[in-house]
Amino acid sequence: MEQKLEQKLNDTVWVCHSLFDRNKTSGSSANISFLHGGKMYISMSGSCFGTLTPNQFAVMTMDGACIGDKKPSKEWPLHLKLYQNKPETGAVIHTHGTYAVLWSFVPAENEDDCIPAHTPYLNMKLGKVCTVPYEKPGSQALFDAFDARIMHGDGYLLKQHGAVVPGSDVLDAFYCLEELEESARVAWELRAAGLR
Amino acid sequence: MEQKLEQKLNDTVWVCHSLFDRNKTSGSSANISFLHGGKMYISMSGSCFGTLTPNQFAVMTMDGACIGDKKPSKEWPLHLKLYQNKPETGAVIHTHGTYAVLWSFVPAENEDDCIPAHTPYLNMKLGKVCTVPYEKPGSQALFDAFDARIMHGDGYLLKQHGAVVPGSDVLDAFYCLEELEESARVAWELRAAGLR
Amino acid sequence: MEQKLEQKLNDTVWVCHSLFDRNKTSGSSANISFLHGGKMYISMSGSCFGTLTPNQFAVMTMDGACIGDKKPSKEWPLHLKLYQNKPETGAVIHTHGTYAVLWSFVPAENEDDCIPAHTPYLNMKLGKVCTVPYEKPGSQALFDAFDARIMHGDGYLLKQHGAVVPGSDVLDAFYCLEELEESARVAWELRAAGLR
Amino acid sequence: MEQKLEQKLNDTVWVCHSLFDRNKTSGSSANISFLHGGKMYISMSGSCFGTLTPNQFAVMTMDGACIGDKKPSKEWPLHLKLYQNKPETGAVIHTHGTYAVLWSFVPAENEDDCIPAHTPYLNMKLGKVCTVPYEKPGSQALFDAFDARIMHGDGYLLKQHGAVVPGSDVLDAFYCLEELEESARVAWELRAAGLR
Repeated sequence: MEQKLEQKLNDTVWVCHSLFDRNKTSGSSANISFLHGGKMYISMSGSCFGTLTPNQFAVMTMDGACIGDKKPSKEWPLHLKLYQNKPETGAVIHTHGTYAVLWSFVPAENEDDCIPAHTPYLNMKLGKVCTVPYEKPGSQALFDAFDARIMHGDGYLLKQHGAVVPGSDVLDAFYCLEELEESARVAWELRAAGLR
Repeated sequence: MEQKLEQKLNDTVWVCHSLFDRNKTSGSSANISFLHGGKMYISMSGSCFGTLTPNQFAVMTMDGACIGDKKPSKEWPLHLKLYQNKPETGAVIHTHGTYAVLWSFVPAENEDDCIPAHTPYLNMKLGKVCTVPYEKPGSQALFDAFDARIMHGDGYLLKQHGAVVPGSDVLDAFYCLEELEESARVAWELRAAGLR
Repeated sequence: MEQKLEQKLNDTVWVCHSLFDRNKTSGSSANISFLHGGKMYISMSGSCFGTLTPNQFAVMTMDGACIGDKKPSKEWPLHLKLYQNKPETGAVIHTHGTYAVLWSFVPAENEDDCIPAHTPYLNMKLGKVCTVPYEKPGSQALFDAFDARIMHGDGYLLKQHGAVVPGSDVLDAFYCLEELEESARVAWELRAAGLR
Repeated sequence: MEQKLEQKLNDTVWVCHSLFDRNKTSGSSANISFLHGGKMYISMSGSCFGTLTPNQFAVMTMDGACIGDKKPSKEWPLHLKLYQNKPETGAVIHTHGTYAVLWSFVPAENEDDCIPAHTPYLNMKLGKVCTVPYEKPGSQALFDAFDARIMHGDGYLLKQHGAVVPGSDVLDAFYCLEELEESARVAWELRAAGLR
């Protein structure tokens, strides 16, 4: 039986506040979505993870049409493409985590597995993270670039931009995002220390 | 219709507590203001973003005269100059964010656009950040130096001191300040890593 | 007289939330246990320190048999071995603290005392920390490797993995873990700065 | 008129929780005191800034005698010496802030003014910080070393140990400690970047 909408909204709002309060995201740059009853619920344009409420979600069909008058985050096509291409996806989170962003500037040895497995957790939890070439945030060029890379990884590192992580539900996506950011941090620090 | 004073005070206090709780400012060094009914409301002298309440704001006219007996932050001329010179300004935040401060020690390649656009968000959200030469905090020399630079940027990096960011309202200024600090951090870390 | 179960659960939940909220652990990677009435209470499989409640503990006998239907963290043998081998142990915490993980990549000068005493607190509070060779998390090989090292230190640094810290009770284990992470951070930073 | 005891206790407990929650101190390593009615109120031995309550303060006379059965932090002589030698002191805070600790490992150019004034705030707020040579925490040798240095600075950096900061009241000491930690961080980072 599918979880109730209220439960999904509460979990999602908790995840947003938690990411913000612990400095895993800042300002108004992140966005998040989940599926319910065959529709996509996505944080509104201009919303902030620090103050997000259950009333600040736009609703969209699987064709990308808006239901109601709430305006979705301009990055909504990134979310929709994941639900369309990977049917096991129940939620998607996109943030500009500092270490994900920093690591995206390090030339990748493998564009289809760009975060080194210095610890095993990211692979155990999420899988492989592929890069997506830089295009302007919110642009059709970015959505096309994402589309071209979507089947190359289990998570995504958008160069000079941030991470996109799908999950079976919002908590699963959250745990995977946390591992992605921590793995990027460990990789960044070990590289700086000349240890890897 | 203009927002109610109570709403502006509540938003402002939330911003202050949030900046403090997430280590974006510390101690008693930051100050914040907004316009309401043609007057400037500014955090009191000696106040702390961690404990600020809606009762700790001094009120000043656009000529810099104090209304009531609450003493404004000694940096009030920085705020007033922005309202006087940039009529679209509805709020101003000044903090000593660690990475803004650190980046102010890196010789600028362009004094009128001193934070590199490694990611596009700061430019998209705020615009360009110009430097202001070092002068003693609270001194007339600093206010004059700020005045001389005020039309050179959309935000300001006071050398050896911190950031000053205007916005259309306090949440807009907050989102811009968050991007400024994050962009300064990314620039600082990439420079240290030899990647830019 | 033994503390009440309710008090132990409350202290344990406070410790978990505190570690999570202050970025000393993240996602769903940590686990924690304590003894009560001759049984081991351990955080459930898949639980998250940010949302843990007193209802999310599995109960096990000292032989490793589960009482009730709650599934324990898959790392439960690490915990049980400590209670079996060190009778003064009343609680155990395992986290992937960033600096503990990073320091585990630095070749140890002494595998039985791997964190330098740049400050004296870790030795005063916990004692010596020994390394445990890398094996896959949750694997029998890891439990065997841990077993082989268990009498070599007062705390444990699992390579490419994280810290395991026992204490007389959960607050004692918490204070020791805090010192371990802080000592690892000081060691990491001093090494990077070429000061030690 | 002197503030009420209840107000001082509330301010002090707020300061402790705030320092802990923002990672300016950790575990059970910090201690704090204030004067009231000619007596010193100091956090109890083994207390933790994250859970400190108004009931966890020992009371001592200016001769160092305990009133009541609560045991003071073993570092109480550091606090008492400040009240005895600097009559303007109303409160004292001692923490192991990460950057204060790290900076204490950098050879000082001037042992009586050991934190560089890259920004002007520490000098404006607190004054000069002098070093105190390393001796074991809680030892008579440390108290003697502190005594020998007490008139050399307005704040203190105990080598391989942490900071001691007096203030006119607990909030003043807190603001000064925040500047000390932030100034030490800026100094540490600029040194690592080769900018100073």
